[in-house]
Amino acid sequence: MTTNREIHLAARPQGWPTEDTFRLVTTDVPTPGPGQIVVRNTYLSVDPYMRGRMNDVKSYVAPFALDAPLDGGAVGEVVASEADGFAPGDTVLHGLGWREYALLDAKAARTVDPDLAPVTAYLGVLGMTGLTAYAGLLDVAAMKPGETVFVSGAAGAVGSVVGQIAKLKGAGRVVGSAGSPAKVDRLKALGFDAAFDYHGGPVREQLRAAAPDGIDVYFDNVGGEHLEAAIGAMRPHGRAAVCGMIAQYNATEPPAAPRNLALLIGKRLTLRGFLVGDHGHLRDQFVREVAGWLRDGKLAYDETVVDGIENAPAAFLGLLRGENLGKMLVKV
Amino acid sequence: MTTNREIHLAARPQGWPTEDTFRLVTTDVPTPGPGQIVVRNTYLSVDPYMRGRMNDVKSYVAPFALDAPLDGGAVGEVVASEADGFAPGDTVLHGLGWREYALLDAKAARTVDPDLAPVTAYLGVLGMTGLTAYAGLLDVAAMKPGETVFVSGAAGAVGSVVGQIAKLKGAGRVVGSAGSPAKVDRLKALGFDAAFDYHGGPVREQLRAAAPDGIDVYFDNVGGEHLEAAIGAMRPHGRAAVCGMIAQYNATEPPAAPRNLALLIGKRLTLRGFLVGDHGHLRDQFVREVAGWLRDGKLAYDETVVDGIENAPAAFLGLLRGENLGKMLVKV
Repeated sequence: MTTNREIHLAARPQGWPTEDTFRLVTTDVPTPGPGQIVVRNTYLSVDPYMRGRMNDVKSYVAPFALDAPLDGGAVGEVVASEADGFAPGDTVLHGLGWREYALLDAKAARTVDPDLAPVTAYLGVLGMTGLTAYAGLLDVAAMKPGETVFVSGAAGAVGSVVGQIAKLKGAGRVVGSAGSPAKVDRLKALGFDAAFDYHGGPVREQLRAAAPDGIDVYFDNVGGEHLEAAIGAMRPHGRAAVCGMIAQYNATEPPAAPRNLALLIGKRLTLRGFLVGDHGHLRDQFVREVAGWLRDGKLAYDETVVDGIENAPAAFLGLLRGENLGKMLVKV
Repeated sequence: MTTNREIHLAARPQGWPTEDTFRLVTTDVPTPGPGQIVVRNTYLSVDPYMRGRMNDVKSYVAPFALDAPLDGGAVGEVVASEADGFAPGDTVLHGLGWREYALLDAKAARTVDPDLAPVTAYLGVLGMTGLTAYAGLLDVAAMKPGETVFVSGAAGAVGSVVGQIAKLKGAGRVVGSAGSPAKVDRLKALGFDAAFDYHGGPVREQLRAAAPDGIDVYFDNVGGEHLEAAIGAMRPHGRAAVCGMIAQYNATEPPAAPRNLALLIGKRLTLRGFLVGDHGHLRDQFVREVAGWLRDGKLAYDETVVDGIENAPAAFLGLLRGENLGKMLVKV
């Protein structure tokens, strides 16, 4: 193959992105300069946070540029190297996804061992989404054994790992919400003590039924009604790790907001937003623990794989609609 | 005097309390039993949190009972004692306000020294409201030198002390909001770097003008629009100590809620509700520091004093309307 295909941002979406948000562009395969490598990507990650980067607003990470390739987590095989320590055939993890061939400074790539774990795990349970779950639950929310944990978006790449780690770390009860009966069944199979489909009735009522004595920790992937219900259900000194608010990423009107924030005072609650990038100091400990749980069969992870770079936009749109179970990936 | 007058809760208010919420009741002056004292109260505290106790809802503290005296902070003089360590003439601080004479177990009273500070200070700057300011700013929000602090309700008993302690502890810039031009002038005299009247325009715009580079700490006494504006103005890793939401205590509809909570994630913000009762471990350090600042003339405090137990309801209603500068007290 002598050409490279990549996905560009064709337009900034107002509300929901569509196929017209993206453009498939064909270029030449790049040649590495000094200190650089070229990687043939094998798997690309699509993640909810990418929706925010499609807006032209100042945030913790620069917005995607128009008429330029998107980026994001990817794994692939080195096909050309002008950098010490990297040779053709090496498997690497890096941040230039959304394309078949990536040209990057070698220092922006990390070699991973495909014999230790499937390469896709480095994009999920052993990678960013796994560390997000681990850091949010144990560091940000500081879950303690015996506590009751509620996770929204619980069938996703982050939520499903949050719930399982909570059980492994001694949570008294773990409750998850998800968007379909099949996902609810999957959560129960993964060891959640209770799970519900948020389409099945008000979150507040379903959460009360699932956790009648209240919750101590809420891991928020959804925002809006879920956050309000969680605040209402919290016991004194409860903590929310606010990881995502996928319910409102495509909103064109100001979103529904929790009207019960005054409960923060009497119940001494903490809402804390976080980004995984601030928790890199936990990475070694995280990899050690999670790799052990995977090896011992104590932690399961799901993947939804879409084939072909040309289908990466569809994979991303499906992710926003909740069509994935576990980590959404594109196989290149 | 052989009779005691006290204020009872006559009805649970729906929305704003009125004079009909209260009833002035005359009883006999009580006689102490073993281990008890009788105190002739000289000053009573009225505080915003008392509004919540008028509702019959489960919270961190039991609701006031109907047709029984209200309670709250008070100072007074022991007039009869059947308890070791307390003698007539002693000045004590205790929790049975809203009445002329209080009968209480001696262990629920604390002797204070009227020569060290005016007795009213023990209800304010050296008491609950002072510790609330100190703990909220330094413990809950963990303000660091050089940071920018925003305080709402800044002319009140808590807010005015928050702003001054922030300056004394090295804040780079302190901004306050209040409800009248006279209060704004007072804040500037107290050393606030900027202050605005929230009636003068959208809080978001006035805050942006007063703190163009953003804020690091928000001390919330108001909630609603103020909280939304503060979240919008926060710099990365900002913290809000959520102390009160007086804007919504009398609301009969669900209150306006911040629609920008998704900013918690990208900016890694923390909203933390607190009650002063959880921070008693700071009391000795607080008294030592604040007494020193008072002695050295570095910390000022305002009081608004209403005369007569029969006017305690009016004092409380005035507090809810923001008619006080600094601590609202009733002189009995």
